[in-house]
Amino acid sequence: MTEPASTATARSAVPADTTADALAAFTRRAALAAPTLAVAHPETRRSWLERIADRIEGSRAELREVAAAETALAEDRLDAELDRTVHQLRFLGAEGVRAAAAEVVEQGFLRRTRPIGPVAVYAAGNFPFAFSVAGTDTASALAAGCPVVVKTHPGHPETSAMTAALVGQALSDEASVDGAFAVVNGFDAGVRLVGDPAIRAAAFTGSPSGGRALFDAATRRPDPIPFYGELGSINPVVITSAALRERRAEIAQGFVDSFLLGSGQLCTKPGVVFLPADHEFEGLLRRAIRRRSANRLLTEAIASAFDASLGAATAVAEVVCTGGAGTVLKTDLATFRSAPQLADEMFGPAAVLVEVGRDRDLVDALSSIEGSLTATIHAEHEDAELARRLVTVATRIAGRVVWNGWPTGVAVNRAMHHGGPWPSTTSPLHTSVGAAALDRFRVPVVYQGVPDGLVPAG
Amino acid sequence: MTEPASTATARSAVPADTTADALAAFTRRAALAAPTLAVAHPETRRSWLERIADRIEGSRAELREVAAAETALAEDRLDAELDRTVHQLRFLGAEGVRAAAAEVVEQGFLRRTRPIGPVAVYAAGNFPFAFSVAGTDTASALAAGCPVVVKTHPGHPETSAMTAALVGQALSDEASVDGAFAVVNGFDAGVRLVGDPAIRAAAFTGSPSGGRALFDAATRRPDPIPFYGELGSINPVVITSAALRERRAEIAQGFVDSFLLGSGQLCTKPGVVFLPADHEFEGLLRRAIRRRSANRLLTEAIASAFDASLGAATAVAEVVCTGGAGTVLKTDLATFRSAPQLADEMFGPAAVLVEVGRDRDLVDALSSIEGSLTATIHAEHEDAELARRLVTVATRIAGRVVWNGWPTGVAVNRAMHHGGPWPSTTSPLHTSVGAAALDRFRVPVVYQGVPDGLVPAG
Repeated sequence: MTEPASTATARSAVPADTTADALAAFTRRAALAAPTLAVAHPETRRSWLERIADRIEGSRAELREVAAAETALAEDRLDAELDRTVHQLRFLGAEGVRAAAAEVVEQGFLRRTRPIGPVAVYAAGNFPFAFSVAGTDTASALAAGCPVVVKTHPGHPETSAMTAALVGQALSDEASVDGAFAVVNGFDAGVRLVGDPAIRAAAFTGSPSGGRALFDAATRRPDPIPFYGELGSINPVVITSAALRERRAEIAQGFVDSFLLGSGQLCTKPGVVFLPADHEFEGLLRRAIRRRSANRLLTEAIASAFDASLGAATAVAEVVCTGGAGTVLKTDLATFRSAPQLADEMFGPAAVLVEVGRDRDLVDALSSIEGSLTATIHAEHEDAELARRLVTVATRIAGRVVWNGWPTGVAVNRAMHHGGPWPSTTSPLHTSVGAAALDRFRVPVVYQGVPDGLVPAG
Repeated sequence: MTEPASTATARSAVPADTTADALAAFTRRAALAAPTLAVAHPETRRSWLERIADRIEGSRAELREVAAAETALAEDRLDAELDRTVHQLRFLGAEGVRAAAAEVVEQGFLRRTRPIGPVAVYAAGNFPFAFSVAGTDTASALAAGCPVVVKTHPGHPETSAMTAALVGQALSDEASVDGAFAVVNGFDAGVRLVGDPAIRAAAFTGSPSGGRALFDAATRRPDPIPFYGELGSINPVVITSAALRERRAEIAQGFVDSFLLGSGQLCTKPGVVFLPADHEFEGLLRRAIRRRSANRLLTEAIASAFDASLGAATAVAEVVCTGGAGTVLKTDLATFRSAPQLADEMFGPAAVLVEVGRDRDLVDALSSIEGSLTATIHAEHEDAELARRLVTVATRIAGRVVWNGWPTGVAVNRAMHHGGPWPSTTSPLHTSVGAAALDRFRVPVVYQGVPDGLVPAG
């Protein structure tokens, strides 16, 4: 769509692709809005996010219904995602006030930050609220004081249009922010957006191939811009013999719950599990999976890509169970290392068990994994020395190290880091979730001898 | 050179280009050293920087003499640069301890940072100590816990070899850091280094063309790495009528001292000055410049590039004075806007005065400047409203806003930011000077439920 539609009409009209002219008009308005947003009072910016949160909260039932129909995600999952979306709008709004006030003073120098300018946000398909039109990237950019142009995800067009309408209504209460928010639709608009001269940074959550293409476009501009891309990852898990002995059934159930969450379509899905060969895990997994019902995947494209990656993996690994809610494969470490398709993310309900000879082989196995959003360790007190080595390796390969838990479900707080070394993200120092998410959109400036009254507020 | 030479032999042997094999051996050793450095005690890492500082301090006279012969920079300037280099090694060493201890704890999550891994440092030609082999990039990477491979600058090979030998000696006192530091020489080695799989980040100070080429190489890798490039800038100055009236002679002298510092070969040289047409500035500038003696530029290549850029500028602007220590040109705002060569950095002793009609035109004039490391405002109390608008514009275009002072001379402290929007840097959120310089090389990691005793120390 080219203008936010009203909620009354949004459900019936799937928006057309945004034309080049319409996109240029949006980015021009965003560029004009940027200086106004930059000097707006931080509490004013916070109030915008509060009003967006209020509007979303107020349309919860309708949003959930439309998203469930479009994405096949369960209503309870969508309800929890709406909670998170509303929470992160309010949380990041408050963090924006904090970020605007942060300063370092020394020797007559005053260091602060300012908003980077108009931000392009690429919505994800697997979180129609929390990583979409009014998701974490939009919230952190607005909270940082930046106009936002969102490229919507084609997997949930009506949800996107409804959300955009709610954001538009929330912002229209305040005359000063014309141009602060727009959405564009369609593949071509997405490509054009990252190259638009008015755009000063871009944030993306999606596939490795899409993310790489947009990263390349952002860095090959005459004036390169920061590109914060989260491309998903394999999220390795290691389980020691002692952990299996103490908590075999509990770990099996936790693993199934985690890798099947959202039908396995989460960036933090545990995709590969390293464990000693005598794990006696298979029966437990089969039973836990059999109790779950199958869901269709988010889109036809995702379903066929999943089938292809599963087919490639099944060609080299043994099937523990398949059909129904999910698939578990099994292989040994040598095969895993020689078959790169087993270390590729399968975006859907599948995971691979990799059997190692002894506990100490877990360290080498974990080291062989590329950069990942998370790494999970299941171990016991008696594993102290092994556990220390596993944590050290996990620290090197992942942005989040999970101990005796599961990586799915990302908390929104001041300590969170949702990122990781390449290829899990394009920008290893940055996070798309938590308070630090808005640091992506604030640029440092130091004032040398400038009288206090002249330093801009925002 | 392929191995740090001893100080005794360094002066007589200009090093040969580093071969591909030798470079691969250095980066392999750096990759092997990285995990050891990462878990070294932060105070141990600090002691390495202290020992490097001690060695440089201990060889001050010899270093200064060699650098003066190679660079034509004045001995007092080099002495001050050595002070700064020693200070920043000690300062960043201490900041490394602070960075390693920094954490955010919330809801069972512990957020810390870890060293990013081996760093490629590209030495600058204009600061043979402070931005060279043991300069701010090397110091911040080592302080962050990262092995460093420095590509030396061809403009001061003996100074580089001597400094590398001193660093090598300082680090050889400690058995655990084999592979933590190496230098490579030659254009080809520089290109190869940024593409080496072991390198996890790169830092560069130099020309826009060289910086862009290396940025492109870093971002086009199969596994892109962060590239922190500082490419120089035009560093605009605005002077209001009131400031001229109150401090004309003082401002003229300050401007000449600043743009001629280091023979105009500083990234922060004020290259363009916007001021009202009735400035009566020219006689003051001529006299101040005439009192200074001319110096040769750093290298033949710099001298001929400077002549070319000066020629291009002189073709469209009027000459206020030239010859001797420096050149000042003069033009009006319309000509400045229509002649892009006037907004290009001239790397040498030259600057352009741009006359505007009235004080209020200064705001538009400043807005027309691209991203810059600094922006300087000379104004008086009575300019309050104009000054506020100038500071707001300066905040948008520059990383440092200087009030009634001059941009040359970058302080090393916790508040400093030495960076700016494109094209002054490739990475607008980062600084190469000050405490935050080492944040470029520390990657966030969050620990979820991990017992305290298992979290790595470094």
